Amino acid sequence: MRDRPGGTVRARVHALDGGSEIVRRDDLATEEPLEIRVSWRSGEASATRTVAVTMRTPGADFDLAAGFLHGEGVIAGPDDLARIAYCTDADLGAEQRYNVVTASLRASLGEPDLGGLERHFFTSSACGVCGKASIESLRARRLVAVHSGLRIDASVLFGLPDALSGAQGLFARTGGLHAAGLFTVDGELVAAREDVGRHNAVDKLIGWALLEGRLPLRDLVLMVSGRTSYEIVQKAVAAGVPAVCAVSAPSSLAVAMAEEFGVTLVGFLRGRRCNIYAGRDRVAAPVAVR
Amino acid sequence: MRDRPGGTVRARVHALDGGSEIVRRDDLATEEPLEIRVSWRSGEASATRTVAVTMRTPGADFDLAAGFLHGEGVIAGPDDLARIAYCTDADLGAEQRYNVVTASLRASLGEPDLGGLERHFFTSSACGVCGKASIESLRARRLVAVHSGLRIDASVLFGLPDALSGAQGLFARTGGLHAAGLFTVDGELVAAREDVGRHNAVDKLIGWALLEGRLPLRDLVLMVSGRTSYEIVQKAVAAGVPAVCAVSAPSSLAVAMAEEFGVTLVGFLRGRRCNIYAGRDRVAAPVAVR
Repeated sequence: MRDRPGGTVRARVHALDGGSEIVRRDDLATEEPLEIRVSWRSGEASATRTVAVTMRTPGADFDLAAGFLHGEGVIAGPDDLARIAYCTDADLGAEQRYNVVTASLRASLGEPDLGGLERHFFTSSACGVCGKASIESLRARRLVAVHSGLRIDASVLFGLPDALSGAQGLFARTGGLHAAGLFTVDGELVAAREDVGRHNAVDKLIGWALLEGRLPLRDLVLMVSGRTSYEIVQKAVAAGVPAVCAVSAPSSLAVAMAEEFGVTLVGFLRGRRCNIYAGRDRVAAPVAVR
Repeated sequence: MRDRPGGTVRARVHALDGGSEIVRRDDLATEEPLEIRVSWRSGEASATRTVAVTMRTPGADFDLAAGFLHGEGVIAGPDDLARIAYCTDADLGAEQRYNVVTASLRASLGEPDLGGLERHFFTSSACGVCGKASIESLRARRLVAVHSGLRIDASVLFGLPDALSGAQGLFARTGGLHAAGLFTVDGELVAAREDVGRHNAVDKLIGWALLEGRLPLRDLVLMVSGRTSYEIVQKAVAAGVPAVCAVSAPSSLAVAMAEEFGVTLVGFLRGRRCNIYAGRDRVAAPVAVR
């Protein structure tokens, strides 16, 4: 049985600096596929189905699986899970040992609706797709606007990127890994997670909160190291997060989604600057005339 | 009928700078879903199937669809396509008008093998997944190592990030869009593409080359603005690209894939520095003792 894979792998690298070259060992962020399976009981019958294969950095795999399933509407809270564990099928090779997680649903839930998941990937509907339809489909899933009285000072916002970066190792900060963190309105870090995939970092974080029984996260702020996509805002809404901040830009659909579901969306949060794209009223800032 | 969606959308933004605030208009990178359909004939029968829905920045949609299908092994060259066009089904709403692309395969191809695509998303195999299995599955698809006599000077490599960045607009450079470019060994830009998704930017670029009849790209270098994942190296191998360079880090599986398939992999290409993770021999550099 091999060891559980780690977050980094050592590799031999030729480092060129102008005209000189040295050969040294360096850390790489581990990227390995994680297969997420859901198993359920319905009457006397039981079934197991693979619902996703995602390339991720090993570590916090149960959080990742739980967060993913929550974002997709398959589970609402920790009570919906009877068990979450690495798959121990006898026919799994040693190398797959820690790459398959099975989430067993509580028996009374019955057969889950995996239709939303399927629409992500394969759809044979004639209706096509568009941004508006994407948002509509979330309404159909009964995703509701975030209700939260949260207020945060701009001066606290300005401190979040450094706080998140400080929670990562030097290696991660140099470009190897995406990070996502949850903060209080006082700027205190509650938890942070990293991954080669930015959606995975958010899933790990929200999955952790779910397994800890902390959802909805109505009094916390989500900070991500990269850009904000539609999908990241969707995950925030599902978790009840009222404010999402990012170092880089949001996409058009991320802003539309934030407006529609009452999320404060902050981008280009760098130094003592930021842009607020939606939900301006949650940010307390002294307004000077320019 | 609405207008074809553009690459950017104007939005109202509250820009905070220290203690002051201004409200202005700003550009957002458009993010809209693109549904990719494949249609084929097999004997007298014909069929159409949705194979992917990806969140992308509109523009170069045919390139994106062609590049995606090539990377997944569905088409090998432009002759495998009878037609590629926006879907014009009468039941498509105005808003979906430019969000569905149908690639019609050449009649003699028959029914395509979409099994690889399915394995990406849903797999019910008991064998599980691991990085090694991911690479093995590509061998099974008859992906072969890149054979190329390409050599490139380190001094040319050092110029690629600025050349790629220069091909993007200021907005894109500030964090809104990922970029991918193809360069000659003299550092001349052949083509560049942008997208909110970094995999999409590469698909657009390789799809463009495919539709132009330029594959395999044995004498060109691929440069990407972010990190390098397994999937990006996979797309490069499928297109015969011998060298992949990135501003940020590669993942462990990207390096394993590059080593396995004979690709030169360069990361942290910034200023006059870079790290070479695989295929060192294709880079000509003066070696000084340090």
